[in-house]
Parts: sequence; structure tokens; C-alpha cells
Amino acid sequence: MTLYEKLADDIETVVRNGVYRPGDRVPSVRQASQQHRISITTVIRAYLLLESRGVLESRPQSGYFVSLRMAQGNRHADELRPSRPIAVSTTVDISRLVLSTLRSISADEAVPLGSPYPDPQFFPYEKLNRYASAIGRNKALWGVTNALPPGRPELVRQIARRYLENGTSVDPNEIIVTVGATEAINLCLQAVAKAGDVIAVESPTFYAHLHAIERSGMRAIEVATHPEYGMEIDALAKIIKSESIAACMVMPNFQNPLGFQMPDERKRELVELLADAQIPVIENGVYNELYFGDAHPTTLKSYDRGGMVLHCGSFSKSLTAAYRVGWALPGRYRDEVERLKFLNTLTTSLIPQLAIAEFLERDGYEHHLRRLRKSYAQQANLMKAMVTRFFPAGTRISSPAGGYVLWVELPAKVDSMKLYQMALERGITIGPGCMFSISPENYKSYIRLNYSSPWSNELEQALITVGKLAAACAR
Amino acid sequence: MTLYEKLADDIETVVRNGVYRPGDRVPSVRQASQQHRISITTVIRAYLLLESRGVLESRPQSGYFVSLRMAQGNRHADELRPSRPIAVSTTVDISRLVLSTLRSISADEAVPLGSPYPDPQFFPYEKLNRYASAIGRNKALWGVTNALPPGRPELVRQIARRYLENGTSVDPNEIIVTVGATEAINLCLQAVAKAGDVIAVESPTFYAHLHAIERSGMRAIEVATHPEYGMEIDALAKIIKSESIAACMVMPNFQNPLGFQMPDERKRELVELLADAQIPVIENGVYNELYFGDAHPTTLKSYDRGGMVLHCGSFSKSLTAAYRVGWALPGRYRDEVERLKFLNTLTTSLIPQLAIAEFLERDGYEHHLRRLRKSYAQQANLMKAMVTRFFPAGTRISSPAGGYVLWVELPAKVDSMKLYQMALERGITIGPGCMFSISPENYKSYIRLNYSSPWSNELEQALITVGKLAAACAR
Repeated sequence: MTLYEKLADDIETVVRNGVYRPGDRVPSVRQASQQHRISITTVIRAYLLLESRGVLESRPQSGYFVSLRMAQGNRHADELRPSRPIAVSTTVDISRLVLSTLRSISADEAVPLGSPYPDPQFFPYEKLNRYASAIGRNKALWGVTNALPPGRPELVRQIARRYLENGTSVDPNEIIVTVGATEAINLCLQAVAKAGDVIAVESPTFYAHLHAIERSGMRAIEVATHPEYGMEIDALAKIIKSESIAACMVMPNFQNPLGFQMPDERKRELVELLADAQIPVIENGVYNELYFGDAHPTTLKSYDRGGMVLHCGSFSKSLTAAYRVGWALPGRYRDEVERLKFLNTLTTSLIPQLAIAEFLERDGYEHHLRRLRKSYAQQANLMKAMVTRFFPAGTRISSPAGGYVLWVELPAKVDSMKLYQMALERGITIGPGCMFSISPENYKSYIRLNYSSPWSNELEQALITVGKLAAACAR
Repeated sequence: MTLYEKLADDIETVVRNGVYRPGDRVPSVRQASQQHRISITTVIRAYLLLESRGVLESRPQSGYFVSLRMAQGNRHADELRPSRPIAVSTTVDISRLVLSTLRSISADEAVPLGSPYPDPQFFPYEKLNRYASAIGRNKALWGVTNALPPGRPELVRQIARRYLENGTSVDPNEIIVTVGATEAINLCLQAVAKAGDVIAVESPTFYAHLHAIERSGMRAIEVATHPEYGMEIDALAKIIKSESIAACMVMPNFQNPLGFQMPDERKRELVELLADAQIPVIENGVYNELYFGDAHPTTLKSYDRGGMVLHCGSFSKSLTAAYRVGWALPGRYRDEVERLKFLNTLTTSLIPQLAIAEFLERDGYEHHLRRLRKSYAQQANLMKAMVTRFFPAGTRISSPAGGYVLWVELPAKVDSMKLYQMALERGITIGPGCMFSISPENYKSYIRLNYSSPWSNELEQALITVGKLAAACAR
């Protein structure tokens, strides 16, 4: 064994023993040369060998770091299991809990691991602000009649262009601009169902869907959902046979909280099953631009033949949440959704619509998104590594294919509402699992973690703290 | 008779014969002196005499004008009669008609006599834009959790302060910031009633109230309304005895379209009647700041003892409609309205909230409002004069005590939808009366005219055209 191989083995042992953690910087080549009293060339050779083994990774101008994949190398966190919810519909009353957890994030300036929102750090707010300010100098744009539904043509054109570029051909005339996806989802659901109707949702489901159901006094029924493939078609087919389902709400790409990307074949099957049964489907596509793979994911909308898919999107997860600009592509329900939009909030503010349109027009969007996706993918790996390393044995984690949240199943003894309270007392928020189901008991030991914030020591310490608290609860 | 008295009589005759119209500038003192070959002093004396008679009025730095009251002096348009609607509840489906008329305003850049919105000309958009732009430079303000309901404390404090200054003491903790009054009215109504419930409204009623009823699948019942005093308490009492009324929606100040200010005693009686019957009342106060009298009007809210008044307000009619910032003071239904706000649109955009708060904080608001009220009061008089003069015999008009719309009853033969179409072909919009009732036939020969735009020759010509078209229809 050569000297540099010996050095490489020593360092790898130290890493595997946890002295250096994933993401830690290891001593510089010069420092290591001094510490071990060996030549710089030997150190460089050892580091290159460790890089080829996947133990270290070099970052330009920064030095060598323990690879983010090392943690998973040490100990594999188990994968999540498919859900098996009880197929009984129930009324929904989840919003008070969600609002109180969201408030805790801002009220105490807590570490926002529990936030459902993207950290605005990565967003081009200066440019948007500059555009908005310039647009606002034009008095004619401070009216109301020029912002009436369906929305400003400048923005509608840009939205349609994005879909085209991403492989879904849409008719610009179908687009209705809304106050965020929140309004879009509400209006689409209200266009197809009424109070008392039963709506099929994923399990776990993004609580925004439960909110829309609660908003309108409808009932929810949960469908078994696979952590990698999404809603199980067979389970849905069975429910459709036994229950009268008014609509189905799904998030086929980077579902919150599971992060899966439904395979194309399953998307097609889902759309066909629901079309055959004449059940409208509300597709929440707010994370579609945040994919980690090579290509933009397909949409249910692109498999829709009969106009039964009501697709909802937003700039809130990819550009800025502050402007509250979303949209609906409601298929055959377009006119009804437009009517409801007019009745619900009259217009969506004009200046934000135009500022976003200008940003998209000037072609900065794809560039911005590439950086955003790269950051989120890196941060997802870091967080997975950290959870694997610092959370108690028996923890299972999701493998998000996009988006910015991680779904974590803790040992069964952990009560995530209790964990939430304990973390909050230490200035840290987490998303308790009971927010994601009409049967809170199902996800009592689950939490959702947000990895959209730039990695920091504070974040790392917060994760370690949550891991320790969870371990204490698991005993 | 002196020379100046003779000159004064001559000019008065010319005015009464319609050669000079109300608002017209009469020749300057110098011009008149030259025209009549008399001394400047004589002209000045004649003009002062005419001013004391109410025929002319002087405007600083502008000269002498025919008094706006002269038209009414020429020929009195009759006053409106109290409405006597049939007290039968019905479902509502008015929004498509309203949206199509609103669209016609912006699509064709038509003269906006039919607009329900204030002309943005008088609004301090430059200042708001400057504030918004400065606020937007702070990255921390581009988040979502810092804009969660009930609303930004900076704005909530300013809203509470305005109420205090205007004589209504409110608890800042009661205020829920919304996406315009549109959302506030919807949420307040939804907090107290459900699909199928019967809601009592004025007759004619502002279609925004009908929209909220339509939005939720409720039924409306119209209550006799006096053009000067508002909803008739006795008529409402009778309906309450025979029907189960879930809520009452009223606009006690400067009602759209009638413009009345309900006398304080009637406000008190209305609140007491409804409180005794345990019927919540939704008070739309969006025009409250736009009074023509000496003092800010009282609110129903100020007579409320049991928290049964759900008061709605907005900056859209007094500062800017483009920002879509309104609020609700929902009394005992506060928590439910907050929950619905969170479910409906999540947040109200933060930067506009802060920009408005800053404008109010810096004390420009009252100054701005004083100018606005003065302009609207002058323009109301001008429009009343013009309608009196140029509309066919048998026309009746409202006497708005505030706000910016005039309600016009045309001779019974006039079909206002037909008139609307004819005017539109000439690039003029008007508000057809059928938008203001669940029984469109009741207001078939009525129109609503907007006088918020700065007076112009184009506006004057448009009014004359509408008058001619109405006369043609009346034949």
C-alpha cells in the first residue's frame, strides 16, 4: 500500500466514524501536508482517490468536502411504505391547525423547517420590484376594468408559452389568472362539486387540497398512494365502484409531502380511468418547474381528451409567492371558473401580472429556474443525508424527485405534534404529519421538512436538534 | 335700473335660454367690457350681482362660470320614488351580464359612464408606487408567512385609526384584511349563511351584493327602499315575520346606485330590529369616506351591541382599486371570517398592504380625501344639471349624498338594455338598471351613471348623446 493510499484509508475511516460529517470541509491540502508531515503531492493523490471513491468532493475555490452521499453510505434510512388509508369519506376541519403552525414560523422567526413555502432567498425579487415600479409609473395601469378576468393578455401569453416549451399545448383562451393557486384550486373544485360531495385525494395529501374541500363543506376520501408512483389506480378504481365521487384532486409531480413524480404511464391510466367514470380531476401543478431530473415532467392535462382535467399552476413556488399570482386551465369548466373568479375576488392585481409577464418575456425565467432546481436538488441530498445520520433508527424518508420538501416517518412511538411543540420551544418549526390527512392518526409519527433555504450552520444544528428530540420521543 | 343691473339681467336671460350652460365659462371681465363697450367696474358689479343671485360662480384664477345649480333652476328633474319590490325570494344569476358590461368599458375604451369604479385620475398612484418600490427592496418582505391573516399590523393599525377618527371605535384585533371588499363581502356572507338561505337586500341593490349571494347559491329577497332614507324598516320587519331570513346586506351610506345616506335614527332602528331577530347584517361601507356633507357618516357598526354587524371596507374607492386591499370587521363572526380568508386566498399581498399603511401613516390621506370629495361633489352637481337639461321629460334622478354614481329613471318606454347597446355603438357605456335587481323588469328603464371622471368635453358630449338616445327610445 502506498503512502497516499494509506492516508486515503485513514481519512475514510475518520469520515465513516462520523468525525467529519457530510458537507464538512476537510483540512486543506497544505494543512493536511503539515498535520501528517507528508508532501503536498501525496495529499493531493489521497484526496483524488477519495473523490473517485465518492467519499470526498471538491468545490472550486473552496477545497475538499465530505460528500453529501456519504451519510447514506454509512447507514441507509429505510424507504417509505405505500399508504393504506381506510376508504371512508369524512368532513374536513384541518385549517385552524395549519394556520397556527404557519403563524409559529413568522411569529418567532423560528427555523422554517416546517414551512410549506419556498425561501425567497433564491427569487429575483430585485428585478420584479424594478419592473413593477416602472409599470406602476403608468397611470392607465391603476384601473380595474383593465384587469378583469380572465387576466392580462401579456401574462396569459407567457403562461401558454411556458406550457408549450414544456411539452403541453394549451389554448391561451382557456387560462384564468387567479390569486395564487389557492384561489385556482378552490374555484376549480367549486366548479365541479358542491357541499356534501365526496372528493378523492391522495394519502397523505397536501393540506391545501383538504382546505379547498373544507372551504366548500365537501367530504374527503383518501386513496392509497405509493411513495414513488403516486395515487394507486387500482385503489381508486375500487373506490369509484363503491362510492359516488364528485372529483379527484391530485398532485402528480413532486407531491407535497411525498415528492414523487408519477410515471407517465400511470398519469395516462389515471386520466383514462377518471374520464371513463366522468369524474373531473383537479391537477395541482405548482411544483412542476422544480424537477431534479433531466426533463420537465408531463402533466395530467397533456393526457386529457375530454376537458375533464382542471389544471392549476402558480408562480408562487418558482418566482415569487408574494405576488399571489396563479392560474387555472379548467378544461370544459373554463366559463364557470371564470365566473367564480369574477365573483370571488373580482380581479388579480394588474401590476404584479405585468411584472411577472415582463420577467418571463425577457427570458430570465429558465436561467433562474435552472439555478433554483440545482440548489434544491443539492439541498435535498444534504437534508436526506442529515436526517439519515441524526434521526433515530427506524426513520424512513422520501426520495423527492423535485420540489423542496422531505417526508419523514419517525419511529411509531413519536407523536409529531408533541415533537412540533418541543422543537418550537427551541425556535424550530417542523410540519406535523396530522396536517396531511383526514385521519390524523395515520400520520401521527410523520413530519415534513422544508429544504428550500440555503444551507447554513443554523439549519444543520436545527436538524440535529430535531433528530435528538425525535430520538428522545422514540424511547 | 343701473347699467350693471341691466347687464346682469341680460346675462341671466341668456343663461336661462340655454346659450350658456351650467359649468360654462362666461366671457372674462375684460372681454365683456370690450363686447358691451362698458367699463370693467360695471362688468365686475354685474358679475358680483349674478353671483349673489346664484346664476354665476367665480373660481379662483379661472374666472366666472354659470353656476352648476342653474340647470336645476331651469327645470327640475323629478325625484325618484321609493321602490316597492315583490317580496319573493329567488336565486341569483346576474354576474355574466355585469361582467360583459364591465368588459365593454375597457375593450372599446368607451366613455366610462357605466363604470362602477372610480376614475384613477384623482388617486395618488405616484406616491403609492414610490412607497411600494422602496418597500419591495427589502427581501424579507417577499415572503408569505409574514402576510398571513388577519393582515399586516402596520395596516390594521391605520385602519383602526381611521375608524376612530371618524367616530367608530373598533378593536384592531377584529380586523381581517382581504382581497378588496369583494372578498370581504363574500366571506362575511359565507360566515353567516349557506346555500339555499334567503338574504334580504335593498331594492335596487348594488349587484356586488347579488354577486355574493349568487357565489354561494343563496337566494335574495328585495326590501322596499327609499331613495333618500334607505331600506324601509317596516317593510323589512314585515318580511322577517313571514320569511326565514339568514342575513341582511345593506349599504347605508351613499348606496350604489341610489346614493342616499341613511339617517342615524334609521340606522339605529335597523340594527335593533335585526339584533332582536338575531339576524346578522353585512354592512358595505366602501363609499364611507366619500361624503359630500360636513361630517363623516356613522356606520351600522357603531350602533351594534351584540357583534351582529359584519362591516366591510376597502381602499378601492378612496385610494386605489388596483391594489385590491379591503377588510372586514366581522363582529362575533371574526374567527370564522379569518378561517375563510385563509382558505380562500391564503394572504393579501404584503407590499400593497405596507404601501397603503405608509401613505396613511404619513398623513396624506385626509388631505387627498378632501380634494376627492370636493371634486366628486362638484361633478355630481354638473352631471345632475346635464341630465336635467338633456334627458327627456319624465326623467327622475337621485340626489347622491356621497359616492360617485347617479341613478336615473328614464320614461317607462325606455329599455335600458337597448339604450346600453345603442350607446355602446357610439363608444359610450352606461350601467343598465337590470343589473341592480333579481327582478330585472323593475329597473328596466333605469340607468346608473358614473361621475368620478374629471369633467371634460368628451364626457359632456357623451351625456348629451345618451340623453338624445333616451329621448328617441321614449318616443
